[in-house]
Amino acid sequence: MSIVPEDEHQKNALGWAARDSSGLLSPFKFSRRPIGEKDVALKVLYCGICHTDLHMIKNDWGYSIYPLVPGHEIVGEVTEVGSKVSKFKVGDKVGVGYMVGSCRSCDDCSDNLENYCPKMIPTCGAKYHDGTITYGGFSDTMVADEHFVVRIPDNMPLDAAAPLLCAGTTVYSPMKYYGLDKPGLHLGVVGLGGLGHVAVKFAKAMGAKVTVISTSPSKKQEALEILGADSFLVSRDEDQLKAAKGTMNGIVDTVSAKHDLQPLLGLLKNHGKLVLIGVPVKPYELPAASLILGRKLVGGSNVGGLEETQEMIDFAAKHNVTANVEVIPMDYVNTAFERLAKADVRYRFVVDIGNTLKTSS
Amino acid sequence: MSIVPEDEHQKNALGWAARDSSGLLSPFKFSRRPIGEKDVALKVLYCGICHTDLHMIKNDWGYSIYPLVPGHEIVGEVTEVGSKVSKFKVGDKVGVGYMVGSCRSCDDCSDNLENYCPKMIPTCGAKYHDGTITYGGFSDTMVADEHFVVRIPDNMPLDAAAPLLCAGTTVYSPMKYYGLDKPGLHLGVVGLGGLGHVAVKFAKAMGAKVTVISTSPSKKQEALEILGADSFLVSRDEDQLKAAKGTMNGIVDTVSAKHDLQPLLGLLKNHGKLVLIGVPVKPYELPAASLILGRKLVGGSNVGGLEETQEMIDFAAKHNVTANVEVIPMDYVNTAFERLAKADVRYRFVVDIGNTLKTSS
Repeated sequence: MSIVPEDEHQKNALGWAARDSSGLLSPFKFSRRPIGEKDVALKVLYCGICHTDLHMIKNDWGYSIYPLVPGHEIVGEVTEVGSKVSKFKVGDKVGVGYMVGSCRSCDDCSDNLENYCPKMIPTCGAKYHDGTITYGGFSDTMVADEHFVVRIPDNMPLDAAAPLLCAGTTVYSPMKYYGLDKPGLHLGVVGLGGLGHVAVKFAKAMGAKVTVISTSPSKKQEALEILGADSFLVSRDEDQLKAAKGTMNGIVDTVSAKHDLQPLLGLLKNHGKLVLIGVPVKPYELPAASLILGRKLVGGSNVGGLEETQEMIDFAAKHNVTANVEVIPMDYVNTAFERLAKADVRYRFVVDIGNTLKTSS
Repeated sequence: MSIVPEDEHQKNALGWAARDSSGLLSPFKFSRRPIGEKDVALKVLYCGICHTDLHMIKNDWGYSIYPLVPGHEIVGEVTEVGSKVSKFKVGDKVGVGYMVGSCRSCDDCSDNLENYCPKMIPTCGAKYHDGTITYGGFSDTMVADEHFVVRIPDNMPLDAAAPLLCAGTTVYSPMKYYGLDKPGLHLGVVGLGGLGHVAVKFAKAMGAKVTVISTSPSKKQEALEILGADSFLVSRDEDQLKAAKGTMNGIVDTVSAKHDLQPLLGLLKNHGKLVLIGVPVKPYELPAASLILGRKLVGGSNVGGLEETQEMIDFAAKHNVTANVEVIPMDYVNTAFERLAKADVRYRFVVDIGNTLKTSS
């Protein structure tokens, strides 16, 4: 007889979970582990909804485990700390992002790149060290090793900070790694969703000239006026592509539907870098001559390590970078997922967990 | 009435040229410009045969101009210098590589990356600043601006040094740029032709562990015993691919026929780099997930700048890196091109111009 989630651990918890690949979420009683000596417990206040959550609740990648409590853009307040926790105290505002564990000993872990550890443990729907399933932030409480918890600076609005835990670090990390964080560069951002809109803001904060590249001319006004981009380029407009040819130092491509890379490579200057952070199922076509003749590169990046996530959020606080969010109550989440599937959100849903999910106690 | 090549300039020259896309070469009388104040004249001693020459004589890329004198891996002895030449004197052993001119004022030229200058002038079959056609090293004499001439260190064998002028810099430059020149790395080299065999040697000289990746198991012995590679991997052998998965920091891919990149990306460690220097006509398939999940990149590179070419050849002299060459007489060149098309050379043909091409004087 297997143990039910509610009895697995000692701490009662209430969340919203998908039970099957319909992806429909409903209230779910489960339990959290009692805090270990390096653990931090938090009352969840806000949790963003990432596109990965949509894939996971629908089992798009084939490895979802149900019941699945999504949510890995978690902001909350510390309620309890383990005896050996050194970074946090009760009452601190903290965040938990895409992962809650890793091996802590491989080369990547040693280099503060826990996100590339082969044993990295995602925050939702994965097996934790103790063999139990990880449950995400659509829940009243959260327990995590302090290594996987970051501090939210005092001046940050907690709702608009939540999406930075995943979307923020996902765009910030490659901009740093690929050297696209230098003032004076001209950067393109492809796609204006949850990732793209914060990419525009970080790029501006780093001192870049930013061009939003989109298939929909309808997004021009918001790109320029709301997000502060310097220019807008319709990717299907040959004249606009021609006019901007060879002008960009880098492009952050956030689109996960397969699209043509050739025009993007053409927008790059020599030595320019095209960074992919959206994962299409089908392979891209890669015209090698474009790379070779201009010494260009196509690189990938996946979230960011913990040290860099803290750096990102401190940078965001200093430069007033937050996500543009639509704050919703917990019981709106199924509608929110439907709207997210249609890209009908400007630009990130954030669930007001603290005020709208009744606690389990 | 147009001016015939023989009367275009004052200095008589004799070369071997292709007259049409049959690619058949035969003796060709033409002329070189009198040296300008920054020019160097040289008696050509040796000239390597690069795959690009084969493409050019056959007009594979559609822009060849006939008569076409190929050859851009040129080594010779200085016979005359212009009044403002500061780097060379009569009697010096020097080399000329892939290019003889560039704008000298763009960003790339300012960064010693003349090879990426949009106005870069190839050594063969291109229009020079004065509007005349550039003729390559299959000729008794050569005239070039000293900026595009490099010094051949005293201890280098001139025949085996010639291919370094193009093949050498083509592999050395990306190894430096992509950070694959650090001791202790594990590097793969795909393809064991003119480029690949010097890539193996440079990688060993830089302190890497080198694995040759090839479709033909027959090349194993030569890779290990003649070129000094540490291991050999048959790229169609699933077991070997599996065993080497995730072990390489970088791969230098010299193959210009279209092939599958997925297994190569799989051989890379996280943060590994796949560098393409061979140009296939058709686009590759690029599986984005491989790049994203391991923060890997695919980058290109095209020859190298003049400063780096000098650095490369000095490094080669210091570490005894030369090409493995088959030295041939001038009148063997048509047979050599036939054999090159079949990859029947270990690993580079070099024409003994000095001893086998009668001079025009």
